[in-house]
Amino acid sequence: MKIKTAIISVFDKKNINFILSTLTELNVKIISSGGTYKKIRNLGYKCQEVSKFTNSKEILNGRVKTLHPKIYSGILSKRNNKSHIKELSKNKFMEIDLVISNFYPFEETIKKNKQSEIIENIDVGGPSMVRAAAKNYNFVTVISNPNQYNRLINELKKNKGKTTLKFRKQLSFEAFLETGYYDSVISNYFNKFSKNQFTEKKIFHGKLLENLRYGENPHQKGAIYNSNNETKIKQISGKKLSYNNYNDIFSALKICESLPKNLGTVIIKHSNPCGVSIEKNKLLSFKKAVLCDPISAYGGIVSFNFKINKKIALEFNKIFFEVIVAKGFEKKSLKILKKKKNLRIIESRNINKNSFVNISHNFNSMLLQEADTKVFSKKNFQIVSKKKPTKKLFDSLIFAFNVCRFVNSNAIVLAQNESIIGIGSGQTSRLDSCEVAINKMKKFQNINIKDEVVAASDAFFPFVDGIETLVQSGVKAIIQPSGSINDKKIIKFANDTGTILVFSKTRHFKH
Amino acid sequence: MKIKTAIISVFDKKNINFILSTLTELNVKIISSGGTYKKIRNLGYKCQEVSKFTNSKEILNGRVKTLHPKIYSGILSKRNNKSHIKELSKNKFMEIDLVISNFYPFEETIKKNKQSEIIENIDVGGPSMVRAAAKNYNFVTVISNPNQYNRLINELKKNKGKTTLKFRKQLSFEAFLETGYYDSVISNYFNKFSKNQFTEKKIFHGKLLENLRYGENPHQKGAIYNSNNETKIKQISGKKLSYNNYNDIFSALKICESLPKNLGTVIIKHSNPCGVSIEKNKLLSFKKAVLCDPISAYGGIVSFNFKINKKIALEFNKIFFEVIVAKGFEKKSLKILKKKKNLRIIESRNINKNSFVNISHNFNSMLLQEADTKVFSKKNFQIVSKKKPTKKLFDSLIFAFNVCRFVNSNAIVLAQNESIIGIGSGQTSRLDSCEVAINKMKKFQNINIKDEVVAASDAFFPFVDGIETLVQSGVKAIIQPSGSINDKKIIKFANDTGTILVFSKTRHFKH
Repeated sequence: MKIKTAIISVFDKKNINFILSTLTELNVKIISSGGTYKKIRNLGYKCQEVSKFTNSKEILNGRVKTLHPKIYSGILSKRNNKSHIKELSKNKFMEIDLVISNFYPFEETIKKNKQSEIIENIDVGGPSMVRAAAKNYNFVTVISNPNQYNRLINELKKNKGKTTLKFRKQLSFEAFLETGYYDSVISNYFNKFSKNQFTEKKIFHGKLLENLRYGENPHQKGAIYNSNNETKIKQISGKKLSYNNYNDIFSALKICESLPKNLGTVIIKHSNPCGVSIEKNKLLSFKKAVLCDPISAYGGIVSFNFKINKKIALEFNKIFFEVIVAKGFEKKSLKILKKKKNLRIIESRNINKNSFVNISHNFNSMLLQEADTKVFSKKNFQIVSKKKPTKKLFDSLIFAFNVCRFVNSNAIVLAQNESIIGIGSGQTSRLDSCEVAINKMKKFQNINIKDEVVAASDAFFPFVDGIETLVQSGVKAIIQPSGSINDKKIIKFANDTGTILVFSKTRHFKH
Repeated sequence: MKIKTAIISVFDKKNINFILSTLTELNVKIISSGGTYKKIRNLGYKCQEVSKFTNSKEILNGRVKTLHPKIYSGILSKRNNKSHIKELSKNKFMEIDLVISNFYPFEETIKKNKQSEIIENIDVGGPSMVRAAAKNYNFVTVISNPNQYNRLINELKKNKGKTTLKFRKQLSFEAFLETGYYDSVISNYFNKFSKNQFTEKKIFHGKLLENLRYGENPHQKGAIYNSNNETKIKQISGKKLSYNNYNDIFSALKICESLPKNLGTVIIKHSNPCGVSIEKNKLLSFKKAVLCDPISAYGGIVSFNFKINKKIALEFNKIFFEVIVAKGFEKKSLKILKKKKNLRIIESRNINKNSFVNISHNFNSMLLQEADTKVFSKKNFQIVSKKKPTKKLFDSLIFAFNVCRFVNSNAIVLAQNESIIGIGSGQTSRLDSCEVAINKMKKFQNINIKDEVVAASDAFFPFVDGIETLVQSGVKAIIQPSGSINDKKIIKFANDTGTILVFSKTRHFKH
């Protein structure tokens, strides 16, 4: 299709001069209105005002400009349909072959959060025109984003002022992506004020942050998207982050954000924790986290919910991590860490809270759920054994239970004070999780220690056997949701063995 | 806002009579066009044609009807803005207070896949009008779906012909959800023809299939959505499916669909397999799958990639499952199974292949990757040990490696013939996964069996220790991707111990 007439209506006017110079060279008639018209004239190009073209004044402070039959007939007419051609000529309408538009910056405006401005920045004319042009891609070319200008210029030069069907179809797809994305942003903005998150229809949107080298494995392509515009984790140094790095960083941050501020270290491998510790002495917190399972920690990612000092940085000369995440880095520490060219250094100071919804996409279905962000304290828990925990032991139980919910189910977590010393994850039987956690503890810990070992379970114990295994291995206090038909037997066993037993009431499966 | 004038343009005309009767009672002036106009007149209600209202003929076979300044000024004018009021009156325009529209059935049309019809079913007029009304929700009410009629009728009755701002705002949100959803469907349809899945912007959509009792845990709300219109798994009998049921069913189906047709049984617990077996004798396939870990299997979900017969149905009297999934059920088998009122019986005959993209949503980021659906055969694999596998053993290795990729990393899978006999899942160290798999095998299997045990690993062994542990426990052949700096040492160890070693080249992490 040779392009003879174009309509241009753009909020973002950058690089518009490049496209204007090409269109003028090709003798394309340009129609425009409002700010775009002024810009085009200021740049010295010929242009007809939409109001002159339609013979109909722009009204309501520009709320209605291009919404006119002459515009839409020009865009929507089929060039190979005789009656369409006849109707156009009868009405003195003309074909419009190219629509260039981009929309009012709704996404940027919602950040300001001024209600009146927000409404004004819902574009009606732009998306309507873009959608019409995109529908008629057999004949019409639509440019819906300034980043397409170069492609249009090349296409027009290559084809002497024409565009190919393939090119128009691709731009049509991109146009519907723009309009769909735009309305997804708007509806998600309004959804914030709605009680019901699980509406009859649901849309999610994302903007490409970066293409990743690959997904979980080299034969899977992968990418990361922002689902809103706010600042994300910030990489300071090191190799490019991989899909698995991102995945592990998110796992680490979820735990870190749940720990008391300025105290915690979390080590992640294959999206599960292999070390978590809270200590006032930050270096100790790090050392204890590593000690939980130094073998797994090797090559893992470590995340701190505090600022890194020189002492901690020096520890990175002793053990290899792929990624370090922290709330900030003291100058000296950064100097030390940056020497490791491969170490990915990430600042997480401005991260958003975890998104409210988990998405699992399979077989053309999407399972959606609220994220498990429940915060709990002692108040939620009920001590059901005769023996009662000291404050110190209770704190340890809460700590263990909190970490437990971030471990793949079935999950058993063993802790001493506020450091994890054994983790049983991803098992299909709870008894196996107990055994895995105990084996890990025995492998790396000196269990003849004075402080008592506690255990947390993400869901109830169906039988006494799991508890029995834990107690036999030296566990002194256990926290679990309760809810089994064998709860009474389990309480009796706890009392018979002098074990402290706490019911947490809430379950924390994570798969 | 008192509603005086309404414009109605609906493709889906069901229940329109209810709304017409209410609007007529309230003396609302109705404007309409085309098929909607005819329908309204046929139902005996007063109505003005849009072309008379705008004094502008409908052209291009109805491609341009409502796209007119008089319509859009009526919808978009601010009722509290003096210059807007003046302009309207000067142009002899009038306020339109209510827009009722629903769109051409694009989603239904793409199933037919007739290119020309598809384009014709991209609605331009409807979404434009709905978006304009939704923008001006401070003054205008927008109905974008027939399922909102009742709410509008109640609202108008309650407020004597008026609507409240709260009501209009909610409908505005729902309108943008409709338009965003509509364009998401269109852009995803076009994206099928595009090579690049990871475009600059990305939208996903879903239609609510059902609200679930809760998510993974009772304190998390959950729901399941269809991301397209095609038939899904079909529940025949039993209790309502839970979030975790769905999640496990999807895990089971992924494995089932990867197995040779009509042969395989898969048992899932907590989204990981705890038994997989292929046997020509279907009953044996089931029994062997259970035998892998009868404790975990209890209360799990079992999935067959064949039709269930009476013999298999009778086995369900011996062991408790929450869900049975199969390609179909012989009549007699269904009679037996249906006696268990709680057992969820699911037919998976018409399920779609797994969706191409995994979504992981965290901290306002979305990690996207292609699903790991790579199919492999012997050709992909390289035998690196001196000792070569028999065909039978090679088949067993391929089977084990295939199952291994569906197990949470680090994953080690032990198989005998084509039945899994040990699984090490979700461990942060590969050596631990080896130990977990071996412990499971020892717990349930008589390992003094004549058929040889093989092992598969989802990623390379970093050191000799894992392989050593496996071989010491009786494993005769091992398949793993390779890629460690210790590969040579590992080959040497295999040769020294007469172990068969195969390099699969591809890694299959799954987190």
